Amino acid sequence: MTDQPLYAPIPLQWVGPLRFSGNVIDGEEVSVPLATYESPLWPSVKRGAKVSAFVDGGIRATLVDERMSRSVYFRAEHAGAALAAAEDLRTRREQMQEVVSGASRFARLVDLHVQHAGNLLFVRFEFTTGDASGHNMVTLAADHLMPWILQLHPELEYGSISGNFCSDKKATAVNGILGRGKNVVTELTIPRRIVQRLLKSTPEAIARLNTEKNLIGTTLAGGLRSANAHYANMLLAFYLATGQDAANIVEGSQGITQAEVRDGDLYFACNLPSLIVGSVGNGKGAGLETVEENLRRLGCREEREPGANARRLAVLCAGAVLCGELSLLAAQTNPGELMAAHVKIERNAR
Amino acid sequence: MTDQPLYAPIPLQWVGPLRFSGNVIDGEEVSVPLATYESPLWPSVKRGAKVSAFVDGGIRATLVDERMSRSVYFRAEHAGAALAAAEDLRTRREQMQEVVSGASRFARLVDLHVQHAGNLLFVRFEFTTGDASGHNMVTLAADHLMPWILQLHPELEYGSISGNFCSDKKATAVNGILGRGKNVVTELTIPRRIVQRLLKSTPEAIARLNTEKNLIGTTLAGGLRSANAHYANMLLAFYLATGQDAANIVEGSQGITQAEVRDGDLYFACNLPSLIVGSVGNGKGAGLETVEENLRRLGCREEREPGANARRLAVLCAGAVLCGELSLLAAQTNPGELMAAHVKIERNAR
Amino acid sequence: MTDQPLYAPIPLQWVGPLRFSGNVIDGEEVSVPLATYESPLWPSVKRGAKVSAFVDGGIRATLVDERMSRSVYFRAEHAGAALAAAEDLRTRREQMQEVVSGASRFARLVDLHVQHAGNLLFVRFEFTTGDASGHNMVTLAADHLMPWILQLHPELEYGSISGNFCSDKKATAVNGILGRGKNVVTELTIPRRIVQRLLKSTPEAIARLNTEKNLIGTTLAGGLRSANAHYANMLLAFYLATGQDAANIVEGSQGITQAEVRDGDLYFACNLPSLIVGSVGNGKGAGLETVEENLRRLGCREEREPGANARRLAVLCAGAVLCGELSLLAAQTNPGELMAAHVKIERNAR
Amino acid sequence: MTDQPLYAPIPLQWVGPLRFSGNVIDGEEVSVPLATYESPLWPSVKRGAKVSAFVDGGIRATLVDERMSRSVYFRAEHAGAALAAAEDLRTRREQMQEVVSGASRFARLVDLHVQHAGNLLFVRFEFTTGDASGHNMVTLAADHLMPWILQLHPELEYGSISGNFCSDKKATAVNGILGRGKNVVTELTIPRRIVQRLLKSTPEAIARLNTEKNLIGTTLAGGLRSANAHYANMLLAFYLATGQDAANIVEGSQGITQAEVRDGDLYFACNLPSLIVGSVGNGKGAGLETVEENLRRLGCREEREPGANARRLAVLCAGAVLCGELSLLAAQTNPGELMAAHVKIERNAR
Repeated sequence: MTDQPLYAPIPLQWVGPLRFSGNVIDGEEVSVPLATYESPLWPSVKRGAKVSAFVDGGIRATLVDERMSRSVYFRAEHAGAALAAAEDLRTRREQMQEVVSGASRFARLVDLHVQHAGNLLFVRFEFTTGDASGHNMVTLAADHLMPWILQLHPELEYGSISGNFCSDKKATAVNGILGRGKNVVTELTIPRRIVQRLLKSTPEAIARLNTEKNLIGTTLAGGLRSANAHYANMLLAFYLATGQDAANIVEGSQGITQAEVRDGDLYFACNLPSLIVGSVGNGKGAGLETVEENLRRLGCREEREPGANARRLAVLCAGAVLCGELSLLAAQTNPGELMAAHVKIERNAR
Repeated sequence: MTDQPLYAPIPLQWVGPLRFSGNVIDGEEVSVPLATYESPLWPSVKRGAKVSAFVDGGIRATLVDERMSRSVYFRAEHAGAALAAAEDLRTRREQMQEVVSGASRFARLVDLHVQHAGNLLFVRFEFTTGDASGHNMVTLAADHLMPWILQLHPELEYGSISGNFCSDKKATAVNGILGRGKNVVTELTIPRRIVQRLLKSTPEAIARLNTEKNLIGTTLAGGLRSANAHYANMLLAFYLATGQDAANIVEGSQGITQAEVRDGDLYFACNLPSLIVGSVGNGKGAGLETVEENLRRLGCREEREPGANARRLAVLCAGAVLCGELSLLAAQTNPGELMAAHVKIERNAR
Repeated sequence: MTDQPLYAPIPLQWVGPLRFSGNVIDGEEVSVPLATYESPLWPSVKRGAKVSAFVDGGIRATLVDERMSRSVYFRAEHAGAALAAAEDLRTRREQMQEVVSGASRFARLVDLHVQHAGNLLFVRFEFTTGDASGHNMVTLAADHLMPWILQLHPELEYGSISGNFCSDKKATAVNGILGRGKNVVTELTIPRRIVQRLLKSTPEAIARLNTEKNLIGTTLAGGLRSANAHYANMLLAFYLATGQDAANIVEGSQGITQAEVRDGDLYFACNLPSLIVGSVGNGKGAGLETVEENLRRLGCREEREPGANARRLAVLCAGAVLCGELSLLAAQTNPGELMAAHVKIERNAR
Repeated sequence: MTDQPLYAPIPLQWVGPLRFSGNVIDGEEVSVPLATYESPLWPSVKRGAKVSAFVDGGIRATLVDERMSRSVYFRAEHAGAALAAAEDLRTRREQMQEVVSGASRFARLVDLHVQHAGNLLFVRFEFTTGDASGHNMVTLAADHLMPWILQLHPELEYGSISGNFCSDKKATAVNGILGRGKNVVTELTIPRRIVQRLLKSTPEAIARLNTEKNLIGTTLAGGLRSANAHYANMLLAFYLATGQDAANIVEGSQGITQAEVRDGDLYFACNLPSLIVGSVGNGKGAGLETVEENLRRLGCREEREPGANARRLAVLCAGAVLCGELSLLAAQTNPGELMAAHVKIERNAR
């Protein structure tokens, strides 16, 4: 047994370029790095990227919201006492921001949500966290807020610094409803002939498959906000390549794919309401240099206002997700194509 | 832009040894490799491992079930036709096994489940897959079964090779209920003084936190079979270190932690019903050698009956999950300990 | 305060006739009784019924499965002991049927499913229950099975006669996946001109609304197998009118509506996998006579093989659900129609 | 077939009295009417009521929040346009309140929440609705808001007056997280000897059963915010007796039961975050008089500030839920008691 520095080298390829427009990146073509043991992922995303290059404006990516959450919880004598404390806290947003500012230069308290369970009081703090994904920042902020609250409300007792109403790396509904990480919508309207030529499919076939598989199939499976084919694959590969906490693909993969025929063309959209990425605080030890280099190549090491590099990163990640999702759905409209592709690529890899 | 072989090097440490007993590994001490950018994970699992060494028999790990699934779907004229086809298929298990055998030497069809949605027929095939995690094997099997079924039932139309009732890498309920991957239960009964000395906590505090955070807190968050603190972290690190398809932490993280005071001691258990691991077909390209070496050190490259190495791997993984889960919960019973540990470790890492 | 017999009189109307075909009712027109405080429900179902009368074959209703469940749970020393007991029980299906036969003439054990949680063993017994909905029958059966199992396995300890893995009157995924009650699919293919004339809408508008509201909207809401507009309303009204345990609308309402344009016409389907109804053991006291009369008028008091009257009842109920669902969706495609209808009907009621 | 006025007479009993304290009812004893075909419900609630009478202060009921929701949805050209419209609407709360005031004297817009799905914009309006449960009031309000918004934002297109993000009578997570109806917490701390004498159980047995059945068992079943034994039964009976829209038991039943041993006594709490009741607008036609009389006897026909009668009603309902929940859990700690009680009561009923 040893503690010497080792590493697991995950194969990485740059894929692209993807063409982007929208409220974060407008009019650029950017390639993305994907680190994965699953080599069929690269040509899959590549095909989607190629489609984006043929579309006017490419992938329209809209960042809708951003925040990072941490929920703590307290024990009160009874629900009445918990309610009184909650009502008091709601009036002290500014004071709480002061406490938070003592813990972090970047953390801004943007909202808080409360849940009662008998005498327990769960408080979900929601922050913007600059260019960091914010796990540590919000924990540190909560770590400053808790003693401050306990001093203010001696009738409350410490429950835990994390009460699972955050909710970190677990399959829950709260993150999609209240927000956690970046909320990014990506859209692509693909001319019919591009669908036919590059995706070997039709707008009708893809739209139908999306309804039957992603919407109805997931519902049958007892799915929770997870109407997609394989967001998790692209998220994992992008997260590993850019030094993210990749266990956040658990909530990150909870999103909805839409596909619709519009005037004979294909409208295709992916919704990622819980995209947890940061452009600082990434990677560690052996992985650090690779990650730094990748972020630099992605243009996320520029001098920008706080948070802008992270938002750029989120949008690039969301673009990769859309490309892979589109490509797999197209493949699954054709009997046999999926497996044939797998077999061929796996063989080439050997 | 280039396609030359690159990799993301994820820092890796061996942690342990963990002591095991149960129906797969009985009476061994084994260390486990964890690859992660999140360095606090190592000491966390290490602390749990130390606890296991102080407990008679260590971690009792019980493998309860194993199977890998793939759901396909068909379109019928109407639900009546879909029902007739489903009833016919249920009588042809042996014939289907023959078809499957043509696709794979190892795949054994162990069950099938059907869902109806109007005229759509979703069929979830469930296989044992030897030492492989089985993603490709079951896709290949489904790829053989579909044309065979379509020939047998010309009234059915191809829907898709994957209908999301599988369900792969998505937050759903079906995998926990019907099984996907290995189902492993790990248990540890920890003497009170060990809880106090090594975990700086008490059985009462840990049991209470588990109820309030993992069970109640997750329920408040709208959680789906996810009553735990952070299974995803350990799963990701173990999966990356052993060449698994780490996006399967999405369903893998859906499990339940139990904690109970028994005669003054702490009974602690983790349930992982969807642990998708294999000891063959792991890693690719640059990662291959590291993965091979890690599997060898874990004792998963021995000559055993098909499936035995994979079951061993699953149990080792589940043990790591229990160690990290126990350690974090213990830490969260103490105000401030969690953050202090984070700050210290992060600083040391720089 | 008094205990003298009182009653809440729920207004009831007969609506229809609905036209049916399928594997339970073939070629009949039947009206259905709906008891509700919400008077707009009647014209809504009425409109759907009228549509069914204009369609060849009317509502195609397919009964896909039937079973009633009860889960018990036991405590074992540890998971290994729980697993051994579970494996033993799986081999004793015939003996268990004998025990069950001592409790009920009609209950037939058709399947059992097991869940492990640490040392806990949950067993979900699944029975057919003749013409009864089966709540009491399966409780009685479980009440006979538990002591028999505890005697056979003295290493197990009584947990509870109901372990919530049943799962009765709660929002869970298990009932849709494993089945509880009757599983009925209803389908209607409506000519475009009927959609236009009777529903004041188009196949395209209804299909689109279904995708955006029932599938996407419910997914956004964190829905669990509940992709419909208002199944609960029709279920409640039918259950009250026919003496059912109407709290079962909780799981009953978890179903999926489909709508698709086919050759210019509208394909519309409702899926009710957890329809818990019985034609015997219904109503009590003051309600008994009304219920009896309603069941008689529905043709569910005929001499048939055991279970046939209950299946007929389930199909009639499912038909009413389809009619109301179709009508509301059509209304919601038109801005203002819904509210106008509400206002008018409420006024007329006064 | 006829449309003449009929009714389904649901047997009704008054049960109690229940003793109450808290922020709505303080220091009263009130009996509650329960209308149900399931006669064992009455003695079950009765037993809980008797317990409440023996406890100092009785049931502590805390009303935590109240609001009624309706979500509409719009189609935009793309997500960017949807985002711009959403941001604009957030600044127009006062103008929207003016529009709402034109629709209803009582409706007050208290919050709004937005969800994006590609180009779709879902807006969840949240109102207080005085003494009404508010279904019609919020529909009417939405019916006024939609044309106003469409005029203000001609770039938006009508989607639907109800987008299922409300979410009405469906198993979703949104209502518990954002609130729908009254949010009521009820608590009871029961001396050990009362648990033993009246409930024939112990605090330890009930706490353990609650953890294993309601929390773990429901989690295994893939439950969604539904950690209870049978809230739906009491809700249905109370709703029918007081003229509510009883289909709202679907979301109403999604709540969490807590049970904990405190200093040897039993702390028992029920959480009902989606209790949809009103004291006006109830019942119709034949049911009207009974409902009126019941509301009068409950003290919900007094002259109070708007909303106060409805809050009183919610608390009374929540008290009945707690009584029935406590009683059933206690019964299930004893092998055989449950079934024996059923058999006896059913026999007496005949």
